[in-house]
Amino acid sequence: MSLKTMEDLFIHGLKDIYYAEKKLVQQLPKMAKKAESAELTAAIEQHFKETQNQVTRLEKIFRLCDMEPRGKRCPGIEGLIEEAKEIIEEAEEPDALDAGLLAAAQSVEHYEISRYGTLVAWGEELGMSDAVSLLRETLQEEKNADRLLSQLAEGKLNREAA
Amino acid sequence: MSLKTMEDLFIHGLKDIYYAEKKLVQQLPKMAKKAESAELTAAIEQHFKETQNQVTRLEKIFRLCDMEPRGKRCPGIEGLIEEAKEIIEEAEEPDALDAGLLAAAQSVEHYEISRYGTLVAWGEELGMSDAVSLLRETLQEEKNADRLLSQLAEGKLNREAA
Repeated sequence: MSLKTMEDLFIHGLKDIYYAEKKLVQQLPKMAKKAESAELTAAIEQHFKETQNQVTRLEKIFRLCDMEPRGKRCPGIEGLIEEAKEIIEEAEEPDALDAGLLAAAQSVEHYEISRYGTLVAWGEELGMSDAVSLLRETLQEEKNADRLLSQLAEGKLNREAA
Repeated sequence: MSLKTMEDLFIHGLKDIYYAEKKLVQQLPKMAKKAESAELTAAIEQHFKETQNQVTRLEKIFRLCDMEPRGKRCPGIEGLIEEAKEIIEEAEEPDALDAGLLAAAQSVEHYEISRYGTLVAWGEELGMSDAVSLLRETLQEEKNADRLLSQLAEGKLNREAA
């Protein structure tokens, strides 16, 4: 793919995050199943449902751009998922597993916040107001998910693993 | 590496971010060289100097833990660097290249903010006040770097690439 214009970049970014969200739809249920605490399981399951909606929103944006939804391999999310898998494999105690899973989930949220923030900025430059309001809905959900994970991290989980 | 305690997790995270920072010491000068705008080049070069200090801080923390500094392959940062390289290869116009490089640099900052935030929380749980104050210094630098990149992204660069 050759990137010449802001629009090329926007489409590149859209394909990248579409691939990432679809990977997360596969991975989040596995992470929820591994989590020990009921609160963390519930938080991941809730974010799994949001992620499914986020995929649908991205498909709407592709159609607003007169394109079929199509992902593009996104090495960033693959690396972050690989780190989450490492924690699951290496953690030998439930509390350490949950604290590690939380950290992995937060790094995924930060990745998405950064990518959606960029897409909102680029969409605004391009005057794509319908796409931007869909992207803003998702960005807000990602920020809320990060906040919920931070609350879990500051609370019970990490104290128990200490 | 088996992860049983909060301390195991802390050391795991320390090795992970040490590997990531050392990779960035190699990559940031290449990104600065590719950037078209003088402002973006300067921002990346400034962050390169900060990153060198951040490596030194991490080495101090290893020694506070009575350990030799040692990294552990970090798939997260490798994925993010791979995405930055893709943008450099695929961008055909200077303004699109800079907007893409900015987005890549911001996703790296978000990754680091997430990782250092976790290490600060875990270090606090472990009562490692000396390590925590070193980690906080770096966390603040990462947040400042992200703010600077956001200002660049909202300003001239993206408007020119539109």
